[in-house]
Amino acid sequence: MRLELMTSPAVADYLTRRQGILIPVGATEQHGPDGLIGTDHLCAQAIARRCGEEHGIVVAPTLSYGMSQFHLAFPGTVTLRPSTLAAMVHDIVASLAATGFRRLYFLNGHGGNLAPLRCGIQEYHAARSLAGGEGLASVQCRLKSWWEMPAADALRKSLYGAQEGFHVTPSEVALTMATHPDVIAPFDRPPPITVGEDLIVHAGDNYHDAADYRARFPDGRVISHSALATRAAGEELLKLAVQDLSADFDAFCRAA
Amino acid sequence: MRLELMTSPAVADYLTRRQGILIPVGATEQHGPDGLIGTDHLCAQAIARRCGEEHGIVVAPTLSYGMSQFHLAFPGTVTLRPSTLAAMVHDIVASLAATGFRRLYFLNGHGGNLAPLRCGIQEYHAARSLAGGEGLASVQCRLKSWWEMPAADALRKSLYGAQEGFHVTPSEVALTMATHPDVIAPFDRPPPITVGEDLIVHAGDNYHDAADYRARFPDGRVISHSALATRAAGEELLKLAVQDLSADFDAFCRAA
Amino acid sequence: MRLELMTSPAVADYLTRRQGILIPVGATEQHGPDGLIGTDHLCAQAIARRCGEEHGIVVAPTLSYGMSQFHLAFPGTVTLRPSTLAAMVHDIVASLAATGFRRLYFLNGHGGNLAPLRCGIQEYHAARSLAGGEGLASVQCRLKSWWEMPAADALRKSLYGAQEGFHVTPSEVALTMATHPDVIAPFDRPPPITVGEDLIVHAGDNYHDAADYRARFPDGRVISHSALATRAAGEELLKLAVQDLSADFDAFCRAA
Amino acid sequence: MRLELMTSPAVADYLTRRQGILIPVGATEQHGPDGLIGTDHLCAQAIARRCGEEHGIVVAPTLSYGMSQFHLAFPGTVTLRPSTLAAMVHDIVASLAATGFRRLYFLNGHGGNLAPLRCGIQEYHAARSLAGGEGLASVQCRLKSWWEMPAADALRKSLYGAQEGFHVTPSEVALTMATHPDVIAPFDRPPPITVGEDLIVHAGDNYHDAADYRARFPDGRVISHSALATRAAGEELLKLAVQDLSADFDAFCRAA
Amino acid sequence: MRLELMTSPAVADYLTRRQGILIPVGATEQHGPDGLIGTDHLCAQAIARRCGEEHGIVVAPTLSYGMSQFHLAFPGTVTLRPSTLAAMVHDIVASLAATGFRRLYFLNGHGGNLAPLRCGIQEYHAARSLAGGEGLASVQCRLKSWWEMPAADALRKSLYGAQEGFHVTPSEVALTMATHPDVIAPFDRPPPITVGEDLIVHAGDNYHDAADYRARFPDGRVISHSALATRAAGEELLKLAVQDLSADFDAFCRAA
Amino acid sequence: MRLELMTSPAVADYLTRRQGILIPVGATEQHGPDGLIGTDHLCAQAIARRCGEEHGIVVAPTLSYGMSQFHLAFPGTVTLRPSTLAAMVHDIVASLAATGFRRLYFLNGHGGNLAPLRCGIQEYHAARSLAGGEGLASVQCRLKSWWEMPAADALRKSLYGAQEGFHVTPSEVALTMATHPDVIAPFDRPPPITVGEDLIVHAGDNYHDAADYRARFPDGRVISHSALATRAAGEELLKLAVQDLSADFDAFCRAA
Repeated sequence: MRLELMTSPAVADYLTRRQGILIPVGATEQHGPDGLIGTDHLCAQAIARRCGEEHGIVVAPTLSYGMSQFHLAFPGTVTLRPSTLAAMVHDIVASLAATGFRRLYFLNGHGGNLAPLRCGIQEYHAARSLAGGEGLASVQCRLKSWWEMPAADALRKSLYGAQEGFHVTPSEVALTMATHPDVIAPFDRPPPITVGEDLIVHAGDNYHDAADYRARFPDGRVISHSALATRAAGEELLKLAVQDLSADFDAFCRAA
Repeated sequence: MRLELMTSPAVADYLTRRQGILIPVGATEQHGPDGLIGTDHLCAQAIARRCGEEHGIVVAPTLSYGMSQFHLAFPGTVTLRPSTLAAMVHDIVASLAATGFRRLYFLNGHGGNLAPLRCGIQEYHAARSLAGGEGLASVQCRLKSWWEMPAADALRKSLYGAQEGFHVTPSEVALTMATHPDVIAPFDRPPPITVGEDLIVHAGDNYHDAADYRARFPDGRVISHSALATRAAGEELLKLAVQDLSADFDAFCRAA
Repeated sequence: MRLELMTSPAVADYLTRRQGILIPVGATEQHGPDGLIGTDHLCAQAIARRCGEEHGIVVAPTLSYGMSQFHLAFPGTVTLRPSTLAAMVHDIVASLAATGFRRLYFLNGHGGNLAPLRCGIQEYHAARSLAGGEGLASVQCRLKSWWEMPAADALRKSLYGAQEGFHVTPSEVALTMATHPDVIAPFDRPPPITVGEDLIVHAGDNYHDAADYRARFPDGRVISHSALATRAAGEELLKLAVQDLSADFDAFCRAA
Repeated sequence: MRLELMTSPAVADYLTRRQGILIPVGATEQHGPDGLIGTDHLCAQAIARRCGEEHGIVVAPTLSYGMSQFHLAFPGTVTLRPSTLAAMVHDIVASLAATGFRRLYFLNGHGGNLAPLRCGIQEYHAARSLAGGEGLASVQCRLKSWWEMPAADALRKSLYGAQEGFHVTPSEVALTMATHPDVIAPFDRPPPITVGEDLIVHAGDNYHDAADYRARFPDGRVISHSALATRAAGEELLKLAVQDLSADFDAFCRAA
Repeated sequence: MRLELMTSPAVADYLTRRQGILIPVGATEQHGPDGLIGTDHLCAQAIARRCGEEHGIVVAPTLSYGMSQFHLAFPGTVTLRPSTLAAMVHDIVASLAATGFRRLYFLNGHGGNLAPLRCGIQEYHAARSLAGGEGLASVQCRLKSWWEMPAADALRKSLYGAQEGFHVTPSEVALTMATHPDVIAPFDRPPPITVGEDLIVHAGDNYHDAADYRARFPDGRVISHSALATRAAGEELLKLAVQDLSADFDAFCRAA
Repeated sequence: MRLELMTSPAVADYLTRRQGILIPVGATEQHGPDGLIGTDHLCAQAIARRCGEEHGIVVAPTLSYGMSQFHLAFPGTVTLRPSTLAAMVHDIVASLAATGFRRLYFLNGHGGNLAPLRCGIQEYHAARSLAGGEGLASVQCRLKSWWEMPAADALRKSLYGAQEGFHVTPSEVALTMATHPDVIAPFDRPPPITVGEDLIVHAGDNYHDAADYRARFPDGRVISHSALATRAAGEELLKLAVQDLSADFDAFCRAA
């Protein structure tokens, strides 16, 4: 049930039964020597859409552009500033809330998006909280990245261990091999470039610009052995992620 | 050549030959009793992607959310504030310029987007102009809506005349029947609701909010007889629009 | 009835009878070798003020600064960023609405302003629409450029045809000759510089910065033969524009 | 030498000799039972323009809208938010600096503008300072309100003493009687409403909204005896202010 | 009664008796060859906290960062852009108002903060005023710099006269000697650098960037003879300022 | 070495040897029935300052206000909107970078701050990345919360296990008992209120407003048994956190 392929009366009808919606979010950024530029949004989109189809959940159009400033030294990258992505998310939350949705589930495919997504959601809630907000219908948002889905997470760890890395991971490459089998052939990929341990340990805590990033990670991958990806693994990851997402979405909608 | 399905090295290679890119833009908004909520972005996307495939042009991921505030009284509508859409466009222009693109062609599918798109592009240029800007590589943008493509425009006028209307036009419905034949069946559509001439004459000059809009146009259509749409017409519109776009894109890239 | 020359009680009294207001908007930007820098706001101001006097309509102070980034390579140009002009328009709409006006008619004198003006107006409406907006008094805005006034438009086309051009048009120069006869003498003006057809065809769709603009249009005019302007033509244009504006303003205020 | 009545080449010529400009700023806000809504911008404009004419200084178009939020409970008031006025001033400074001006003198006519004007100017300088800024041409701004001009200030104090008050002062009313003798007749004005001393003492330090303001100052004046204004006093104030401004502007332009 | 050292129930209890709060604001910026970088916030903080302790007034955490762009050519300076400081103040006002405070007294220690503080406060009030605002509880703010406290002001003038200067004043240095006796020893300070009279006269009206500032005031002080500071004077200034502040705060809270 | 207690020449001297700085960040928000409102900033501040003293590291003034919108239904809470906190962090990074710092270590004490802090830092880097950024000195930021310090984290887990909870944790209360022994007495605290498991599991992924939050967590604590806190545990946590921080800061400064 892709929102863009529904009519407005059909949405009105859905809202009488259910007020939840899935919103896939990703990025448009370099994915090393052979990953797809759209990997992050293609993964989130595929999981959300299949979940929507199988479980009758409305899925909003994918947010294809994310916060990717540190990848800008590689062509094909397009970034939104953090403030722009946050504003966009604010408006989407405000629109959905204004038209009757009450449980907004953002399924994310790019780690760099998490902070701006959270800021955008909370900018909406901050306005309500500063205005008092009591008496308004409760509007809740949940934000998860697909690799947090428990069964999918377990599988990627068992398949790739430390070689999963942090960017251009074999699991996300595998997912795009499943969703776009004609685009990503099982071609020879180079092993990851070895980088210092310090870079690895603090990858999530350190912040720098695109020139710094490219100097550290010259082929664009962050210690991920993307060559380990297979289409079969991608199909399994997709199946497990959809199951997990469906269960988590239901729990989210049921909770007070 | 969808950007999201390319690798970064492939984009780098393309840039050595060509610096132009197509960027489809649309909206996620009510389209009356039976038009698709994604009509505006589906149309722009279909034309841009087919043009990209046939003519070897890189096509960026579609901007699926647009400026649709006046439709917010109908469920399924999601709007970006004008300032948000402008910021998004600014960032996309700045990113593409920073990574080597020089001719950015926005293909639009929603009239309400035109002002924010122009503002976003010019916000980028204003910063360059205020900083002096001489010596910087020229970065040019072109913005057109698909219905301005000459042959497609002539066809829609000959097919529908005044019944084309301004929103949920038979031509855009026909296009989505061509691109999504399984979704839009040739089902019975009601004729448009008759509205006062004054509403029609000034549709492009008047500005009001969503409550006002719904009071004026209670079924969501703006004097368009969407029931006239056929899949065959949609296929012809698509073909003509792609031809026109290809020629216009080439002229844009060749010009100084 | 210039707002700035009224007292607050007089405005309160006017509002008991009528809730419409005229707001002239222009720019402060180069107008070629001999056009006035204030041409755009002087034209809009003259038409709005005479209309206000003759028909008892309140006219707000002129917005003299507009969006003129592409003219910044010529001294005397002052631009607002698109976002700034939009914010200014938002605030003016919000203020007038808060104090009782219901029909706000922007009379524009500079094409580059249209997008920011639309964005500013719709930013106001977007806030209302996202908040629900039902039950609020309807606040409507209309935006027209003076050269869209039908009789004035017909005259300028019959007088100048293709030599009207797009910037420093003989019609706007004629208008300033009528309003400022002592400033603009009927002196010898050079013919327009010939530019490539491609520049002309796409003038309204293409976006670039000030350095690009000056390289294309080195004397500042955009294929306009400003030397054709006469004071007599300016007086006739002024008279016709005022008549058209008065009729359009009345229709706007009467409409639901 | 009003900028709007000059041509771009004339400005270029002026800049070879002098890089200073006068920028009048005011407001559009209620001025009690009989003061003009435009009083603040009319006063600044009249002084700046006469100074420009007599001393060959370029005068920019007047900023007619200011920060007047506390007057919004009285019709005819239009406010810019502080952030909007600051953005506008930023852009004007940036434009004038980009096109060759180096000494920008803001002549203010409304106390409520001072903070936003300072913020706008310093927003421009903050960007330069954060970027290093060394090596850039020095761009300096001066900001004064007309009533700070020494001789004019001495006169208004000698004429009105404590009855000058803080809003709708007899001196500003006198100035508009001089500049618009046909609009402001020497009609009977009521004496000021008496308010508590606490309101008076802290007028410049306290901040509240429009509802609070109107409750305190129900006829819109802030302890000013506007009925004392005469046209003759206005003419003298205008003459003295122009002399002071000319001297101060020259000192500003000469200083390192 | 420092807010950060209270519990939420204790604040709720305080609000049943009193709705006033003190908010100290300062800066983090160079203070010449031997003044402390935190001088401005340390002074405001010391006065506000002692006043809070002695008179049972809640004191909010100090805003330690201010608007200091013109000091950026000296290490140790950290500036907020004017727009950022204004946004911060807006949010603090909105939060305190939303949770029950009604009289917000900003005690300032840095002249450069005044404009952004005023803008932030009025941005809050502008939103209320544009929304109508009637019926809302009155929320009032007062803003004073500590050197405006009458007895403290008289003392600093009597002690230092013209040698007080405008930045790194002996009175503020004395205050920090009183509050941080171990940090600031009564060491030899150089006399102030002599600058042209023009610089002095217009210090409060002129605006320039950090490079300009450092060129004018090469040791960071603005004609202040900071070597005259003594710890004893600081203790007296502190005592007097606290007395003045207490009285002014009470008057503020009592007034309608 | 608190920055606010240094002189500018001392900072310049420090920068010749070292370019790193510690920046503590916290919040001003309700901490249940008996935790201090300033807990979050007091903890980060205490750890950073002791680390600075013991290891000769410059420590910037604490950011005492954070992003606390969801606590606004409890008095004493003050929130910055996410966008405001991000802007503040941007300016601090830009200022420190402009004056010579190259390694900026944010030590955080409030989970709700993480997203805005990351956005602010990356907004700075995004501007550099979009501008090319090559050739600029590398400016790197690290962001960690004090409870991530390994030894401190191990201790709090061993002491409190699941009773640590998510807000008003016994470990943070213990820390404030160590730093403010006179303020926080070892008084009787109630056990935490039991809440549904679903609330707990998704605490970090769910977003709602202040009214929703208070309905869920009526005494303000999030399943934390704050009564377990002791001053001795706080002293040990402080010691361990300082050791960890010192080591991590050194590694950060040494890394390329």
